[in-house]
Amino acid sequence: MSAEFERTSAEAVYRGKIFSVWRETYRYADGAEATREIVRHTGAVGIVAHDDEVVWLVRQPREATGIGDLLEIPAGKLDEEGENPLQTAQRELAEEIGKAADHWEPLHDFFTSPGFADERFYLYRATGLRDHRLEAESDERIDVVEWPLERLDDAIADCRDGKSLIGLLSLARLIDR
Amino acid sequence: MSAEFERTSAEAVYRGKIFSVWRETYRYADGAEATREIVRHTGAVGIVAHDDEVVWLVRQPREATGIGDLLEIPAGKLDEEGENPLQTAQRELAEEIGKAADHWEPLHDFFTSPGFADERFYLYRATGLRDHRLEAESDERIDVVEWPLERLDDAIADCRDGKSLIGLLSLARLIDR
Repeated sequence: MSAEFERTSAEAVYRGKIFSVWRETYRYADGAEATREIVRHTGAVGIVAHDDEVVWLVRQPREATGIGDLLEIPAGKLDEEGENPLQTAQRELAEEIGKAADHWEPLHDFFTSPGFADERFYLYRATGLRDHRLEAESDERIDVVEWPLERLDDAIADCRDGKSLIGLLSLARLIDR
Repeated sequence: MSAEFERTSAEAVYRGKIFSVWRETYRYADGAEATREIVRHTGAVGIVAHDDEVVWLVRQPREATGIGDLLEIPAGKLDEEGENPLQTAQRELAEEIGKAADHWEPLHDFFTSPGFADERFYLYRATGLRDHRLEAESDERIDVVEWPLERLDDAIADCRDGKSLIGLLSLARLIDR
């Protein structure tokens, strides 16, 4: 049961603004073949931004979920030409929270839903925060939440967003130690 | 900046086997409107199955990522008619790992990528494990990995799968305490 595979065909079946969908075939080392439907996405970044007292979170409407807004870490898509993930994270932190950070540390680099999507997510920890605001994109509806670290377990319990759970659980372990 | 919204139109632009894609419009409480592209998926479950010494993980090819196989927790789609998430988790644990569990505890219930997908993920902890094998689906290529708990931090560092990171980080906090 080898995990080695090669792509033998790929056909775009939908091209959208945020992602495209491909129908692809793969051949494995044992000669078997399989078809996969794959969402191709530019990837995204998220930031666990905190000081000794507060972690900065956001609430924003998530239409796809059908349940209203979600409590999340600041995040954004890798959609600016020529920007690397760290630069995108720095821009998003300034746009969403109005902060810059002296220290940036990569926490995790993962796929949000590797069974059907290639979305890769780069998660950072940002500390040494100071005020630095950039104008946000036009149609974002984001409320900033200064969440007390002493109630971090409540944020973890409330959180329904995968990337943010990874960020908050990582932060909890860093603080516990 | 209210997060309240209502869907004002929805059009299917792709219908696949694993997911469909919809182009939808939403109206917010302030009267503004926006268009969203949304992947609609049946949802999935995953299991953190462990005893005092080992957590059971899997490696499987993830064609979408382009990087080969990923280290993951056992997991599966909610694709059986009439099955609830806990029943799906129990079936997947028997198919992928060959185990049943006396104790099932919900850990988190989250969206894997709420910016563009409705995939909801139900994460469980399973303990009190005993042998119980069900035949797996035909085209799955899964290698079981018995990972020592004393090396749990190495699994967290290796893991590139979002749902599995949430499971392993949650387990680490449960063990740390």
